[in-house]
Amino acid sequence: MKVAVVGATGAVGSMILRVLEERRLPISRLAAFASRSHNGAARFGDRELAVQAASEDALRDFDVVFFASSEDASEKYVPALVARGAVVIDNSSNFRLREGVPLIVPEVNGDAVRPEHRLFPVANCTAIVLCTALRPIRDAAGLNSVRVATYQAASGAGRAGLDELLAGERAAALGESEPEPSVFGRPLAHNVVPQVGSFDASGYSIEERKVCDETRKMLDLPELFVSATAVRVPVRTAHSEAVFFETARPTSVARMAAAFASAPGVVFHAEGIVTPREVEGSDDVHVARLRAESDDGRHFALWCVGDQLRKGAATNAVQILELLRAKGYAP
Amino acid sequence: MKVAVVGATGAVGSMILRVLEERRLPISRLAAFASRSHNGAARFGDRELAVQAASEDALRDFDVVFFASSEDASEKYVPALVARGAVVIDNSSNFRLREGVPLIVPEVNGDAVRPEHRLFPVANCTAIVLCTALRPIRDAAGLNSVRVATYQAASGAGRAGLDELLAGERAAALGESEPEPSVFGRPLAHNVVPQVGSFDASGYSIEERKVCDETRKMLDLPELFVSATAVRVPVRTAHSEAVFFETARPTSVARMAAAFASAPGVVFHAEGIVTPREVEGSDDVHVARLRAESDDGRHFALWCVGDQLRKGAATNAVQILELLRAKGYAP
Repeated sequence: MKVAVVGATGAVGSMILRVLEERRLPISRLAAFASRSHNGAARFGDRELAVQAASEDALRDFDVVFFASSEDASEKYVPALVARGAVVIDNSSNFRLREGVPLIVPEVNGDAVRPEHRLFPVANCTAIVLCTALRPIRDAAGLNSVRVATYQAASGAGRAGLDELLAGERAAALGESEPEPSVFGRPLAHNVVPQVGSFDASGYSIEERKVCDETRKMLDLPELFVSATAVRVPVRTAHSEAVFFETARPTSVARMAAAFASAPGVVFHAEGIVTPREVEGSDDVHVARLRAESDDGRHFALWCVGDQLRKGAATNAVQILELLRAKGYAP
Repeated sequence: MKVAVVGATGAVGSMILRVLEERRLPISRLAAFASRSHNGAARFGDRELAVQAASEDALRDFDVVFFASSEDASEKYVPALVARGAVVIDNSSNFRLREGVPLIVPEVNGDAVRPEHRLFPVANCTAIVLCTALRPIRDAAGLNSVRVATYQAASGAGRAGLDELLAGERAAALGESEPEPSVFGRPLAHNVVPQVGSFDASGYSIEERKVCDETRKMLDLPELFVSATAVRVPVRTAHSEAVFFETARPTSVARMAAAFASAPGVVFHAEGIVTPREVEGSDDVHVARLRAESDDGRHFALWCVGDQLRKGAATNAVQILELLRAKGYAP
């Protein structure tokens, strides 16, 4: 299997290389690309990979191409790759909501993959974590509404986001004046910032719209009421979410707990809590604090946490490839 | 007016002294107490106040006694003080839900004060911020349900909470091993901790129960559906809240915005965002990101932030005294 990773030096791209190595996929040729010319190197296990500038020509020979770069790069290169039959796994948001394009989280909707599919967008990281947590509930009791307030890590905005947080903290610790934020709308050190992406006319942010729209698509519940407030917090890695939801049919905490216990990709904490620092590096979505909001058996709350670079992006991308191989749809 | 502050060296007590000084109340005698013997000093403007150990005897001569100390101290001293007619303004949670005891946020329910009232609990800080933000909405369109996910500052757990956060951050910055957390259930540096207080059998934390119960009482909506997820974040001061709510009657963002514009104690941000670092030191509750969740005119979301040491505790306590004086119920 000849594999290319475009955007290989970024936070998600370098994690894709790491997950490919961890999961020991049978790769005969692996190449690292940057969307623009780039003088860096990428790592694959002990090997250093030269990073080449992406071009239509350079990407021509690969069976599988991961995109973990700008929205532009995927827009530019994906159509031709798909047309000639390559498997494209794309972390950009370009194609996620396109009719006929599946939006796959293997534990949630792996059965939506068809042999003719070649393009696999990887959903928004916050939405992947949310849907992995909600899938067992949808299956057990249906879902009428979901409200989610997020606690999103700085590295969700890439290396630049994490660097901006750490630079602000360092300045504060040394009593120096903080650099002006450019990635986040406000300094993130000792702060929380209720904006992830720009706002549309309705007052929702791009991130919040992605969470709502992609959740409906992944859970295959086009009428689901979803509302989100997306907030950046001074955490390095792993997104947390406070979720309030209404089921379609009466159920109980005990029945949902049983569903979680056998759910793939979920670690269920029946007691106590789980925090992003504990989840950093995990490929699972962690669910805790499941509880009933009322006695009617239909209103509940939970807390979920997932490493947004792994399950929210790179791990999910590689799991899609594993799923295709298991089904015989990829080499 | 002879005024005593019990717990004068703590985070809330020292802030009460500061707010008393800022707002220039006519105080003829001011004394600082600690619930146990204490060798510190408290500040009132330029003056240093000796801190005495509280006792029934020592508190006997005061017209107004603020409690900003342990639950124990207020439980021990409040009944006798109230019995002899002193005004007691108590930041503990002991008496907040007691029948016949008002739970006052002047901008929310100042009219609930009666001449015979002597005991004034100060509500939970998170609930004060929430109710100040929700009052204009309740008045404009009623309220059926409220769900809130919180982003609570370390200093909400007192000086020890803030110190624990800063010590953890310092250790991380120096590459030293972090001290074991004792105030919070997990290290708070670069983390968020979805637990504020212990959990009851239903799975809700004490803090979450306070928010639910006290919100119903302050808004005078005993049947209001309220659910909360309380989360500690690595912020120094000011609590933020992502609120999802359903009104009883159809309304609009424009009508609610107009209600906020004239609401006392509220700064409404029609555009953009507001973060806890900007609100630290403010006596107002800041509301932003008001938006409709659906087209039915009844489902909305907003973001609110308040300095929990000021409006969430000390300022509200002093405002209660100002209200009593304005009504002629206090000297």
